[in-house]
Amino acid sequence: MQPIVSIIMGSTSDMPVMEKAAQLLNDFKIPFEINALSAHRTPAQVEEFARNAQQRGIKVIIAAAGMAAHLPGVIAAMTPLPVIGVPIKSTLEGMDALLAIVQMPPGIPVATVGINAGLNAAILATQILALSDERIAQQVNEYKAKLSDKIAKANQELTQIKYEYKTN
Amino acid sequence: MQPIVSIIMGSTSDMPVMEKAAQLLNDFKIPFEINALSAHRTPAQVEEFARNAQQRGIKVIIAAAGMAAHLPGVIAAMTPLPVIGVPIKSTLEGMDALLAIVQMPPGIPVATVGINAGLNAAILATQILALSDERIAQQVNEYKAKLSDKIAKANQELTQIKYEYKTN
Amino acid sequence: MQPIVSIIMGSTSDMPVMEKAAQLLNDFKIPFEINALSAHRTPAQVEEFARNAQQRGIKVIIAAAGMAAHLPGVIAAMTPLPVIGVPIKSTLEGMDALLAIVQMPPGIPVATVGINAGLNAAILATQILALSDERIAQQVNEYKAKLSDKIAKANQELTQIKYEYKTN
Amino acid sequence: MQPIVSIIMGSTSDMPVMEKAAQLLNDFKIPFEINALSAHRTPAQVEEFARNAQQRGIKVIIAAAGMAAHLPGVIAAMTPLPVIGVPIKSTLEGMDALLAIVQMPPGIPVATVGINAGLNAAILATQILALSDERIAQQVNEYKAKLSDKIAKANQELTQIKYEYKTN
Amino acid sequence: MQPIVSIIMGSTSDMPVMEKAAQLLNDFKIPFEINALSAHRTPAQVEEFARNAQQRGIKVIIAAAGMAAHLPGVIAAMTPLPVIGVPIKSTLEGMDALLAIVQMPPGIPVATVGINAGLNAAILATQILALSDERIAQQVNEYKAKLSDKIAKANQELTQIKYEYKTN
Amino acid sequence: MQPIVSIIMGSTSDMPVMEKAAQLLNDFKIPFEINALSAHRTPAQVEEFARNAQQRGIKVIIAAAGMAAHLPGVIAAMTPLPVIGVPIKSTLEGMDALLAIVQMPPGIPVATVGINAGLNAAILATQILALSDERIAQQVNEYKAKLSDKIAKANQELTQIKYEYKTN
Amino acid sequence: MQPIVSIIMGSTSDMPVMEKAAQLLNDFKIPFEINALSAHRTPAQVEEFARNAQQRGIKVIIAAAGMAAHLPGVIAAMTPLPVIGVPIKSTLEGMDALLAIVQMPPGIPVATVGINAGLNAAILATQILALSDERIAQQVNEYKAKLSDKIAKANQELTQIKYEYKTN
Amino acid sequence: MQPIVSIIMGSTSDMPVMEKAAQLLNDFKIPFEINALSAHRTPAQVEEFARNAQQRGIKVIIAAAGMAAHLPGVIAAMTPLPVIGVPIKSTLEGMDALLAIVQMPPGIPVATVGINAGLNAAILATQILALSDERIAQQVNEYKAKLSDKIAKANQELTQIKYEYKTN
Repeated sequence: MQPIVSIIMGSTSDMPVMEKAAQLLNDFKIPFEINALSAHRTPAQVEEFARNAQQRGIKVIIAAAGMAAHLPGVIAAMTPLPVIGVPIKSTLEGMDALLAIVQMPPGIPVATVGINAGLNAAILATQILALSDERIAQQVNEYKAKLSDKIAKANQELTQIKYEYKTN
Repeated sequence: MQPIVSIIMGSTSDMPVMEKAAQLLNDFKIPFEINALSAHRTPAQVEEFARNAQQRGIKVIIAAAGMAAHLPGVIAAMTPLPVIGVPIKSTLEGMDALLAIVQMPPGIPVATVGINAGLNAAILATQILALSDERIAQQVNEYKAKLSDKIAKANQELTQIKYEYKTN
Repeated sequence: MQPIVSIIMGSTSDMPVMEKAAQLLNDFKIPFEINALSAHRTPAQVEEFARNAQQRGIKVIIAAAGMAAHLPGVIAAMTPLPVIGVPIKSTLEGMDALLAIVQMPPGIPVATVGINAGLNAAILATQILALSDERIAQQVNEYKAKLSDKIAKANQELTQIKYEYKTN
Repeated sequence: MQPIVSIIMGSTSDMPVMEKAAQLLNDFKIPFEINALSAHRTPAQVEEFARNAQQRGIKVIIAAAGMAAHLPGVIAAMTPLPVIGVPIKSTLEGMDALLAIVQMPPGIPVATVGINAGLNAAILATQILALSDERIAQQVNEYKAKLSDKIAKANQELTQIKYEYKTN
Repeated sequence: MQPIVSIIMGSTSDMPVMEKAAQLLNDFKIPFEINALSAHRTPAQVEEFARNAQQRGIKVIIAAAGMAAHLPGVIAAMTPLPVIGVPIKSTLEGMDALLAIVQMPPGIPVATVGINAGLNAAILATQILALSDERIAQQVNEYKAKLSDKIAKANQELTQIKYEYKTN
Repeated sequence: MQPIVSIIMGSTSDMPVMEKAAQLLNDFKIPFEINALSAHRTPAQVEEFARNAQQRGIKVIIAAAGMAAHLPGVIAAMTPLPVIGVPIKSTLEGMDALLAIVQMPPGIPVATVGINAGLNAAILATQILALSDERIAQQVNEYKAKLSDKIAKANQELTQIKYEYKTN
Repeated sequence: MQPIVSIIMGSTSDMPVMEKAAQLLNDFKIPFEINALSAHRTPAQVEEFARNAQQRGIKVIIAAAGMAAHLPGVIAAMTPLPVIGVPIKSTLEGMDALLAIVQMPPGIPVATVGINAGLNAAILATQILALSDERIAQQVNEYKAKLSDKIAKANQELTQIKYEYKTN
Repeated sequence: MQPIVSIIMGSTSDMPVMEKAAQLLNDFKIPFEINALSAHRTPAQVEEFARNAQQRGIKVIIAAAGMAAHLPGVIAAMTPLPVIGVPIKSTLEGMDALLAIVQMPPGIPVATVGINAGLNAAILATQILALSDERIAQQVNEYKAKLSDKIAKANQELTQIKYEYKTN
């Protein structure tokens, strides 16, 4: 089975954030891989990964990094594939990682999601894949439809809370 | 009993902040409702809610949201009623929610209160309602009068603290 | 003619921001007054103003201030009327004024609008007044309806821009 | 000619930022449309646009907004298509728009690019389209290859600068 | 015994920060008082306090406040005495309180110390009092002299830490 | 004539901010001196200045600095005199200078005023001197009394602005 | 054994951050010393240390400080040696210390590393020493080579995580 | 003539900041080179440069970059040489570049100087080179000695300013 999404992170300490991405891809039955790579500690492997990703059949790359988070941008510089960046919070509330990922120079965009937003990175990946894959497109639609369930359940819980002047 | 204030929040996790709003409205015997709605997960219900609120007799809407907090502004765009926005702290110390609520474009204001300031949102609602309701106006005056009690009690506690050169 | 909205500012240098508020109230034919008061330079007058506003028939107060912007909060502490705060940008991009206005302690809310958002302060005032004034309510509805005109005009301008592959 | 990319902005004042996006799509011979829509002033049209975009053949949406920038997120809530968000700088150095776009709640990602990064938004769109369009894929590759030209030219200019101890 | 320094705080929750101020004044045998006052909840008492402080023999006022911290500035507006402001951290890491205290408008300074810096507020008060009180001046000198003791002790501790290549 | 206030700044580029301090001291007929000193470029002179200031009759030091603004803190470390710090805006809106001045460690306070608040530094100095100088005390009282004049003048200007529904 | 690197910190509470620096220097068999010094509490010792460091054979100074962190800059002002600054996080997420260290005025640089980055300070010191010491140069090369090991180990751990659609 | 310092920048628009670095190296008669390289647009050249720099005789690298400033960190990852990073201000007051350069992960330090501090980068380079080059060491000492001249000149200018109560 050929992976079409590649999740990259700098260390296993990022896994709690990124396992939500992995789980969603798994639920969508989208073949994916997870690897640890560091823009700073293993630059040669990053380059090899980025330069070969397209040929290996990867379609979307999700790269998570914290602090001076260079990984998403460095990969984006070496592949024509869309790269989704996930800023990991470790210092300064994650503001350092957010700015180091989103503020890319003209020519090399990174599709940035929110701080620690591993799940959203995976959803964005499925939305991109859905443009040319009918099965995934249907799953995206179903997923979106189910989002309101959480609100419905919240409403039910709120109905349980009683105040004398609460009218619902 | 017809609600005249509507408290809206994105999830039940916001309830600890907003129950202070509910409690104050209850104490003031102002009929209110609490619902969960999401600008992003249930946009259709948000629209239905916002478009019908005035006709249902709602006079003030209190909307709480965190992160990229769109709910108060989206509701404000679809109702002539005053909308009070409560930024919920979840990331970046709540600064993301504050800016996403208060910095509305010309034409669509949201009456923003402080981060996690559920109680103040309810007080502001009562101040608005008091303009055309004598009973509520009286309650606002009484509430304001009682605010100094907390300080009086604090002063009593401080009097208990003894230092040799403390003179009160 | 009795004013029902009172616009307060610290100096005439705030007038360029606040004249949009004045103009909108004038367009809505809502009697209003404009005064300069300073929480720091004329505390006695601020107190006199705040304590008497309700009796003089004022229903909503709009207070603009910059830097360590205490004026809206100080007025809010001395009146049961709803106070709308406008943070004026002068240093730190207006962040100091925003935080000094919006982060009020429990019990004394200020209905804060965006930085330099004089117009939105006035719109919020009309929305509050509209709850008990049918004529103003109608004007608010008309104003809201016209907001889309600006977008319509923008769209017309955008249609003028031609690119070979632009399809509208 | 059917547009496959849709550029949305809140007002024509955003056009200087977004014309770089339009120009790149035009250079790539990708049919596109440009419209003005406001999450706050024309919520009904935004909804109509977002709900119908996929059926009309749109594959990627680029939405630009400033201040409490809700437009990208509100559109993303109503379409399964990938939405690219461009924070426009108008106040607070654009930090308000950045946070209001990127910090989306779980379930509804917006692919955020840098502040005023209209060009990068268009490049990201072409990278996404390239996954299922061989012609565009080739253009992306060519574009990436040409990025180094700017550096080469910069190097030539730097060679002109002479200092006694400068060795190149 | 007539107090010459007055410590003001908004609630007893500020006491852990301010007790370091009280302790230092006590150690210096400087008569002082501690009171709770709120710019927002007890504006009348604040005014009474500020207007009478000088006549009562107070020479320096130390005012602590959090969030939209108006207390120090409001007091400074109503007394010719020097007012030392202590920003209390409660939200936004104390940045809101710092800006609301330090960014005073021209004419009404507040001598601001660091976030939660109750001790430094008291030291600053003693430095001011020392200008006209020989006994306090001597104590300030002794206190300053002892500051290096803490460093000396730190050095002793560091000497205990042994590494093979550590040379001291 | 013996100076009792010493104004210190890092370069003549700070003079536009600090001349307001000089002017006020001159208006109050308080003998003062102005010198350029740099914590980084002339550390030996800074030390000499700080160690001798008290003996030379200086009572209050006003130190202005920008960027990593060490001057006020470094002087405060070497004198028992109260040191007033003025953060000068040059980069980052002056936030770097503000934090580098106000966030002093326990034991060494700097009485910090607002960004570029040269005037307020001088007023604070006069308030401190007034504690032991009847003439200056009277001037402070007169100055405070005159602060409301600016507001009175602003009010007059505002009265000139006419709108049909403006009632004053 | 003559120390060639000097680690300076303001208090023993900084030791948990700086022991990583000490350990690395020890591992590299580079003679070093650790001392506590305070720019504010022991300015005379700081000066003595800074003025004599070069003569004592010190080649690189590592100075750690928090809050209004003046120590690195003050030392840099009094020695021609390169000074590496380590901002210690204690308030405001360490942003105050970072700005107070990195934003030095023209003429007096401090080589600043990240917040709490004690280890990186030591590595930077070894890189500087390696320029004129073949043994250290070799160690730096070996250290750099081993950096990828951590990633390799992370990859092994990630391989253990199994999902049905995970392909590695 | 073999360069021993290499100045790298992303575009010629950074030259106004970096020419101060070039001028100082030239004044010190230190052979240097200036090149344009981009971590994102010319990653292969960056790698080639970084991997060969040491062999070519380079001893210190000065790398300037703005926005999501990856260049200094990416180079540091591929060379054992000390890398000095200069954050260039283009958006967000340069805060994005500062954080993207200074907040490097453990193992790969960048010696960061202030925002736009091209001159300080060159001075730091000379201080590092001075450790093993007697001629440069002497120049550093002379340069440091001359720093006080600027202050002396400032003092002369300040002496020209006359106020009646100014005593110097």
